[in-house]
Amino acid sequence: MDDFEIEHVAEADLEDPVFIEGLPGVGHVGKLAAEHLVEELDSELVRRVYSTHFPPQVSIEDGLTQLACAEIHAVSAPEADMLVLTGDHQAQDTVGHYGLTDTLLDIVESFDAAPVYALGGVPTGELIEEYDVIGATTTETQREELEEFGVDFRGNEPEGGIVGISGLLLGLGERRNVPAACIMGQTSGYLVDPKSAKAVLEVLEAAIGFEVDFESLEDRADEMEDVVRKIQEMEQGSAAGSDEDLRYIG
Amino acid sequence: MDDFEIEHVAEADLEDPVFIEGLPGVGHVGKLAAEHLVEELDSELVRRVYSTHFPPQVSIEDGLTQLACAEIHAVSAPEADMLVLTGDHQAQDTVGHYGLTDTLLDIVESFDAAPVYALGGVPTGELIEEYDVIGATTTETQREELEEFGVDFRGNEPEGGIVGISGLLLGLGERRNVPAACIMGQTSGYLVDPKSAKAVLEVLEAAIGFEVDFESLEDRADEMEDVVRKIQEMEQGSAAGSDEDLRYIG
Amino acid sequence: MDDFEIEHVAEADLEDPVFIEGLPGVGHVGKLAAEHLVEELDSELVRRVYSTHFPPQVSIEDGLTQLACAEIHAVSAPEADMLVLTGDHQAQDTVGHYGLTDTLLDIVESFDAAPVYALGGVPTGELIEEYDVIGATTTETQREELEEFGVDFRGNEPEGGIVGISGLLLGLGERRNVPAACIMGQTSGYLVDPKSAKAVLEVLEAAIGFEVDFESLEDRADEMEDVVRKIQEMEQGSAAGSDEDLRYIG
Amino acid sequence: MDDFEIEHVAEADLEDPVFIEGLPGVGHVGKLAAEHLVEELDSELVRRVYSTHFPPQVSIEDGLTQLACAEIHAVSAPEADMLVLTGDHQAQDTVGHYGLTDTLLDIVESFDAAPVYALGGVPTGELIEEYDVIGATTTETQREELEEFGVDFRGNEPEGGIVGISGLLLGLGERRNVPAACIMGQTSGYLVDPKSAKAVLEVLEAAIGFEVDFESLEDRADEMEDVVRKIQEMEQGSAAGSDEDLRYIG
Repeated sequence: MDDFEIEHVAEADLEDPVFIEGLPGVGHVGKLAAEHLVEELDSELVRRVYSTHFPPQVSIEDGLTQLACAEIHAVSAPEADMLVLTGDHQAQDTVGHYGLTDTLLDIVESFDAAPVYALGGVPTGELIEEYDVIGATTTETQREELEEFGVDFRGNEPEGGIVGISGLLLGLGERRNVPAACIMGQTSGYLVDPKSAKAVLEVLEAAIGFEVDFESLEDRADEMEDVVRKIQEMEQGSAAGSDEDLRYIG
Repeated sequence: MDDFEIEHVAEADLEDPVFIEGLPGVGHVGKLAAEHLVEELDSELVRRVYSTHFPPQVSIEDGLTQLACAEIHAVSAPEADMLVLTGDHQAQDTVGHYGLTDTLLDIVESFDAAPVYALGGVPTGELIEEYDVIGATTTETQREELEEFGVDFRGNEPEGGIVGISGLLLGLGERRNVPAACIMGQTSGYLVDPKSAKAVLEVLEAAIGFEVDFESLEDRADEMEDVVRKIQEMEQGSAAGSDEDLRYIG
Repeated sequence: MDDFEIEHVAEADLEDPVFIEGLPGVGHVGKLAAEHLVEELDSELVRRVYSTHFPPQVSIEDGLTQLACAEIHAVSAPEADMLVLTGDHQAQDTVGHYGLTDTLLDIVESFDAAPVYALGGVPTGELIEEYDVIGATTTETQREELEEFGVDFRGNEPEGGIVGISGLLLGLGERRNVPAACIMGQTSGYLVDPKSAKAVLEVLEAAIGFEVDFESLEDRADEMEDVVRKIQEMEQGSAAGSDEDLRYIG
Repeated sequence: MDDFEIEHVAEADLEDPVFIEGLPGVGHVGKLAAEHLVEELDSELVRRVYSTHFPPQVSIEDGLTQLACAEIHAVSAPEADMLVLTGDHQAQDTVGHYGLTDTLLDIVESFDAAPVYALGGVPTGELIEEYDVIGATTTETQREELEEFGVDFRGNEPEGGIVGISGLLLGLGERRNVPAACIMGQTSGYLVDPKSAKAVLEVLEAAIGFEVDFESLEDRADEMEDVVRKIQEMEQGSAAGSDEDLRYIG
């Protein structure tokens, strides 16, 4: 196998698609958001990306195996076409991150997709009520547009920058003249956070121009809140409970 | 040395062989099962695979050294021919796992061997009496066949998928149209488990059509049970013994 | 992206420039010193170096992203031209360190820059009053010259040698006949140390022949001393405070 | 720089040389032994090997830097010529170990040197009085010869095999038809062990046919024994001292 391989699963007939990435990360915000689009809208798997830099692993569904990969879906909303990247893995090493992102940008260019939206979460370190959405872009034009849709741009935040595939889609995208933006929902960092994913998707709806039903995501948010409530009760039952003691749950 | 090298040790005259992999893993189930076949049946070493992704190491036998490798044996039972892969090492890094498996599949194809059976263990986290055998395959046909021989297919189990050479023999095998199945014996995960290896081999006997004597494997299982019994007695002597306290022993 | 890529940001018209490196390291001495030159003197960004061996990361400034890189500035003082390398990252692996340094030396040679000065810190393990400057060079001529400017050469010190880009600029520089010296300010190793950076720059002023204002660096040193004083007071308030308990602060 | 580079420092006029390796390892036995030969006998540095898989580091001597390398010396005793490999580093990763050993074997072959003697230590886990020397070889002929000179061959010992450059000189040497033996002195594993190095060299004297003065090595052994004695006294002063509590000292 080559270091990076693209499998053509199906052809896609898309008009001026944008590209949306949602791989695992903080609070699984990006992953939840991207998977929600694939589930709720008209979608078809069109490409798989394999890599020797993914974990040496197969997943199992109904007893059948699937080699570790990232999947690109053609997703159509009434007013917007999208390519949506989902998957369970980041690359396993530095060189792999760069090579994988270059491969993804090859696909972006083969579909003339633009701009690229990398979805993710920003950890706040505490449970939150209001889900601000923070942004970072490769161009000032995109920054101005996204500000109109309620995205916050806060100087050098997040301070540690953006790491992994999301970060490199912007960094390598810029070097290839692919406009790209990262849209990050605030999230505690302790929990899988469907509410943060919803906040990110609401920005996307406005920016791209489509509508998606949030019921299933809200149901999942309710379940998470039940979990949180039970944990808080258990901690108040015991001595020194505090929100900050919550482990990562999802 | 190239990254992956195949040494031709002997020619093999096999008819429609299957390929069986048993490298180290959970409970050493796969390794015990594969080595049992090599020891009990007519077998001859036919290939060695060396790799710069194996540990930089030689083993010693009678004062003579052998470079780290995987070994492929031609094994003949009265009614079935097999290629059986044994060894002491997995690859040392992600890229190595992929390259090594590709090299093994080159050998599989050079012998027109099919299907591939990757043998392994599934940890249950507790000592067990009944040794169920769990399966995963690359094709529905294989799944149906193996179900007839008593292999359990349990939706998405094992949940973490299958990692290492075993997993990739299925994942990369499928991409090269080599039908492959993973047959996993349940095992506590704490002990080298000859009983689980026997359970796996009994499925193989039925699926491939051969017979093998289990006496040496049963003797080894008896020894292991003696060890377990002594540990349990020691723990009951001390205060709070439980099965789950067992360390990995073998 | 290639493993190492050089971006031409601007042309530079420099006369017999020296090359100065100041990447992150002990006490951030080299980084502080190099950044001070870029800030205080006439400077222009002329090259960026990208690498798949840098962290897979973008930094953010005013909401706009910048891919992880090292930056080379053309810096002109009235009597001396310099190329000054700054950045936030070392390479992430051994092979990357070698490749990145080779790429930097390609740039050094393309500008006919010589000698190379690698700036850094030497940890003493305790807070210090006097900031000796230790040196190491690739040639005896340079050693003699730097000794005249007050640089200490102490046999085999630092005992662990010099690691990272700084070390390799000398090691690989010598193999390419590029004369190179490492100039290291003593520093506690616990704190970002502007005073040590100033001590290093004073040697450089004498060796290269230029002058730079130190006010901003001294202000920063004063701030650091305030921090240290407060920590010492806090520790004396508590029981067993000692200088050596200081964590790394900056 | 290429991944592995050989620097020709001087020509050597050697008759039927053997090749002796002594890189850092258990008890620094091999390193002490090899360095002792270089120091006590007529020797000249003839080759340096550099590698991107060595640490990114320079060492310092009299203020001058030397890039991390392995060094090969032409060493002449009255009755025997040798190439002796010394250095401060093993490769930093698996692939590097294989590539570096291949490069060393290129040098071995360019000098028609044979056999290869890899020197090292075998840890016993306790302080020892008698220094047995254990062996492993690539050929039965060598095993028989070395047995005559008092080398022990103990079935599969050492059980973990031989790792690093020493192991691969045998493993890769055999694949290139270069006869090779590993000669390992027993050593506690806690201390740099000049006595074990002497035991190894005494075997070499007999096997190759040369004599070397051991005074400096014995002096160093005496110093180590003083250190051990002081530590034992300190531990008997404190409560529960035992030989096994000794940390690694050297």
